[in-house]
Amino acid sequence: MKVKLVTNILVANERIAEENRKIFQDAGVYVINIMSGPGAGKTSLLERTIKEVGGAIKIGVIEGDIAGTDDAERIDRLGIPVVQINTGGACHLDANMIREVMDELPIKDLDILFVENVGNLVCPAEFKLGEDMKIMLLSIAEGHDKPLKYPLMFQESSALLLNKIDLLPYTNADLGKIKKDSLSLNPKLKIFDISCKTGEGISEWVKWLTALIKQ
Amino acid sequence: MKVKLVTNILVANERIAEENRKIFQDAGVYVINIMSGPGAGKTSLLERTIKEVGGAIKIGVIEGDIAGTDDAERIDRLGIPVVQINTGGACHLDANMIREVMDELPIKDLDILFVENVGNLVCPAEFKLGEDMKIMLLSIAEGHDKPLKYPLMFQESSALLLNKIDLLPYTNADLGKIKKDSLSLNPKLKIFDISCKTGEGISEWVKWLTALIKQ
Repeated sequence: MKVKLVTNILVANERIAEENRKIFQDAGVYVINIMSGPGAGKTSLLERTIKEVGGAIKIGVIEGDIAGTDDAERIDRLGIPVVQINTGGACHLDANMIREVMDELPIKDLDILFVENVGNLVCPAEFKLGEDMKIMLLSIAEGHDKPLKYPLMFQESSALLLNKIDLLPYTNADLGKIKKDSLSLNPKLKIFDISCKTGEGISEWVKWLTALIKQ
Repeated sequence: MKVKLVTNILVANERIAEENRKIFQDAGVYVINIMSGPGAGKTSLLERTIKEVGGAIKIGVIEGDIAGTDDAERIDRLGIPVVQINTGGACHLDANMIREVMDELPIKDLDILFVENVGNLVCPAEFKLGEDMKIMLLSIAEGHDKPLKYPLMFQESSALLLNKIDLLPYTNADLGKIKKDSLSLNPKLKIFDISCKTGEGISEWVKWLTALIKQ
């Protein structure tokens, strides 16, 4: 019974996601769904990326949170078009939420639309939004057991940004194990070591991103 | 439509949770539901607590994870009765999962049964399991914006364990803001600063816990 409910929700979601994807394609905007657990640094990555890119790539942002507008305010301060979704209780964004807010952004004028999902290593990986690519962050302070405990997000993502790399000397995290287990789940995964605090690794990530959307 | 589904699931869950609670009460075991985001240190807290308690309190553990048995193996190595739930895709434990595994543990011989929920700051707070108390961990490396972004878990918990306090000098986290915002959501919340790595604060937590169950 429970399985049936979930299946129906996911099927309905995929239909809407497919429609979103068509709208984004027609508008010529590349859509990236950013996922992670809480506090892994998704908004900080956006801030760093926006600053590194400068005006070279036109960026817009959809922020997803259970509650609050902190993240949208941080993006707004950088002069970037942004809209905040508050999901109420829902632990993930779904395609219909994206549909509801997309008209608030000038999508035809954008090169990249980043969608910052709710902080959750589980459900966001199950719900397509109509994106071109999913990426994920993992804070190395979360420990090296995460890939094997939350496999789906690692399998669904095209890039894994290992953030807070500056904390590595102060934790027991085994970076080699994180990378090995992540690649065993998803051999095509592109992995970046970054620190949104110090800026380490951000230029490599932005170079990769720029090359990708200019294809 | 979606709201209706969620309501039905939650109502059905509460009925089973109430039955679980009655079973646990009859067995004389105090049940604690431990919640947090991924990698905040729930299993490490259990390890530290088990060692600090020694034989004075009889402890059993139910481990909840999407996949894998790492956490149950860590508890098993300490000679503690433990059973692992793998939820498949589900991002939280529910009352029926607890019902399914409770007979695997000698609940009549236990003083405390810890239930380690799936690492997720959202849904675990919505699903009652039949517990006497919910507690939560927050890793200070997750940042100080978490209480206002994930309010329900802070509201539902009786204690908040601020873990990885040893990382404080290396982060921008504002500990005062975490505490102020958490208490504004839940004025009765008991807050502990702890480090499962160094052992800081563990004895205060265990003292509080011991006093609580001996009431």
